[in-house]
Amino acid sequence: MAPRTPPDSTRRRERSRVAILTATRELITEVGYARLTIEAIAARAGVGKQTIYRWWSSKGAVVFDSLLALSESPDGGGIALPDTGDVEADLKAVMRATAAEFSDPAFEAPIRALNTEIINDPDLAAAYREKMDKPMRAAKAERLRSAQRAGQLAADADVDLIIDVLYAPFTQRWLLRSGPLDDEFVDALVDTVLRAFRPDRG
Amino acid sequence: MAPRTPPDSTRRRERSRVAILTATRELITEVGYARLTIEAIAARAGVGKQTIYRWWSSKGAVVFDSLLALSESPDGGGIALPDTGDVEADLKAVMRATAAEFSDPAFEAPIRALNTEIINDPDLAAAYREKMDKPMRAAKAERLRSAQRAGQLAADADVDLIIDVLYAPFTQRWLLRSGPLDDEFVDALVDTVLRAFRPDRG
Repeated sequence: MAPRTPPDSTRRRERSRVAILTATRELITEVGYARLTIEAIAARAGVGKQTIYRWWSSKGAVVFDSLLALSESPDGGGIALPDTGDVEADLKAVMRATAAEFSDPAFEAPIRALNTEIINDPDLAAAYREKMDKPMRAAKAERLRSAQRAGQLAADADVDLIIDVLYAPFTQRWLLRSGPLDDEFVDALVDTVLRAFRPDRG
Repeated sequence: MAPRTPPDSTRRRERSRVAILTATRELITEVGYARLTIEAIAARAGVGKQTIYRWWSSKGAVVFDSLLALSESPDGGGIALPDTGDVEADLKAVMRATAAEFSDPAFEAPIRALNTEIINDPDLAAAYREKMDKPMRAAKAERLRSAQRAGQLAADADVDLIIDVLYAPFTQRWLLRSGPLDDEFVDALVDTVLRAFRPDRG
């Protein structure tokens, strides 16, 4: 017997979904979030406007899913931070890489648009926290708990607070463009946080 | 001789300016930033639309000035943080008060709107940094330098970094609604930062 393949309509739907999400990301980069329209997404993706309205409730929702698709790994596996046993080196490497990613226009424009929407839309903020922030936070927390077990961070420190203090100044500087998001800043942040939560803190 | 008074047109202009800025803040609170229009501001302030367009280049610019007006003290004096000699107590008091202010709807809606605009408008972001963030940062820096002189913070610590680590997690939590902005969180933040920058840090 031949292996079962998905029916044509399912494959066609998946192709349309990918085309819509790709078109959304491209258009945000090209025209900005404010001038992004469902019409333009439909035209670029080669689908009817009604297809988009059937699957998404708002422009913000399409943008959200277009970014979520970026963070989904092809093998369906979860996110994990590197763990070489040296928490200082690992955090600096990961945050330097993130800083580079945040200055890439293809990534920068859509994530900035999403942040704008989140600030004014509590429902979207909740979806963001659940689907994007939570898995990322879990990965960061796992790496920090490993550092606690290795005696590199105080065992009784609140991991959520460590994440806030480590990442908020980084995100804030990017979001408000208040200063350069460079290696020097990243390293100073990591050093500060490791000092605040070192095992022998009084 | 009678004291000179400003000509009628100057006083009328100032009255219109105050009416426009007040109407802007009221309307943001009532209808939200997205649905705020120049027409509605003009109607509420009792001025013509053209008056607003003559003085401001965009909706974002009016909103910005309406908030700036809030932070201008009537006597024209600068901002200063309390200095009782105990930096821990002073920072906790100021940040707890700010947290309460940030949960007041009359303040919350316009400042959230402004933050949205800033994220997407580099020019407005620059104006915000220059006119609002800079004086606030200078006041915070002055209080922290006083703590350095009093031996409560490491004398060689980077004051800008201290401000980032102290305030960014606070702003971020409020902006993204990622958790309660309560006394417990404020106190934990202050404790963390004082630990990271204490004078005897190794």
